[in-house]
Amino acid sequence: MIIYFATGNKGKFHEVKTLASSYGIVVKQLDIKKVEIQSDSLEEISLYAVRDIYNKVISKGIDNVVVEDAGLFIEALRGFPGPYSSYVYKTIGVRGVLKLLEGVDNRKAFFKAVVVFKSSSLGERIFKGIVHGEIVEEPRGIYGFGFDPIFKPYGSDKTFAEMTVQEKNKFSHRSKAFTELFKWLKSMVSKT
Amino acid sequence: MIIYFATGNKGKFHEVKTLASSYGIVVKQLDIKKVEIQSDSLEEISLYAVRDIYNKVISKGIDNVVVEDAGLFIEALRGFPGPYSSYVYKTIGVRGVLKLLEGVDNRKAFFKAVVVFKSSSLGERIFKGIVHGEIVEEPRGIYGFGFDPIFKPYGSDKTFAEMTVQEKNKFSHRSKAFTELFKWLKSMVSKT
Repeated sequence: MIIYFATGNKGKFHEVKTLASSYGIVVKQLDIKKVEIQSDSLEEISLYAVRDIYNKVISKGIDNVVVEDAGLFIEALRGFPGPYSSYVYKTIGVRGVLKLLEGVDNRKAFFKAVVVFKSSSLGERIFKGIVHGEIVEEPRGIYGFGFDPIFKPYGSDKTFAEMTVQEKNKFSHRSKAFTELFKWLKSMVSKT
Repeated sequence: MIIYFATGNKGKFHEVKTLASSYGIVVKQLDIKKVEIQSDSLEEISLYAVRDIYNKVISKGIDNVVVEDAGLFIEALRGFPGPYSSYVYKTIGVRGVLKLLEGVDNRKAFFKAVVVFKSSSLGERIFKGIVHGEIVEEPRGIYGFGFDPIFKPYGSDKTFAEMTVQEKNKFSHRSKAFTELFKWLKSMVSKT
């Protein structure tokens, strides 16, 4: 089975492709501009995006689309940077977020991913994954992307950036959401 | 002449209504959900929004729409918070932005507004307004909204939040952009 993942982020694509292979699913990257709306809700952002892209690619003979949106939600910052994590990463970056948390005891944070799948035969389906953890004092690690160097999931001594893709996929929000998608897809295929 | 301003922000509506009255233009508030896309470009955000709203209201007998989007761009923070100013205000707030600038000498910033008008007879037109200034050390003033208490335009000793609406309209990015719109509308009307 082939699914089409609309993302411009190579790090995400690599994570998802690695995970999919163990389910016998082939993931292809759809290189198409994704309309992301401004919203506090990852679900709303992803649904809008998947519908927009689906309408564009259906005429090209592609009959399924997956989009994913994710964010880092820091409790002491009222959820900031949330859905705008990539913009915040590009501007104030890891250093800016650490500066905002200087002197702040509450380091609780979670990464959340929302995955939306849409096809003509299977309709629309939303999957979510959350991983709870904390923001460390100093960036650590070289893998991954974005805020991975400052996020340490509970149950691990390593930040996401200190983990290989395989290790990160054991913990991550994105792998949780995509694992649900892949299990569901396999159950759907086995019914037909 | 009546124009329809799509905004949920009462502070903005009040500013624009006050300004419009001196041009003999009546501004009505369109209470409709505005689709705002994620983009570094206020122009792109506003154009997408005005087209979406125009398509929705034209069937209700409303034949013009104005949208405005604005942001505070801080030089030392690579333009942050920019188009996401209202989200950043809601989460880390004025205190968060001041914390990011602790120990930073470069306090340069500008507010930028983009106004887009669309009607069947006049088409689409974009107007921009920019006001340069600096981020002060401590919040001052009680008027306005958002980051007004920490932005002081060049040529004034007051922050935007220390100015009445009439005073702020002498300086502000929004009033510059809307003044251009109102002048243009008057010139168009006088031609017909």
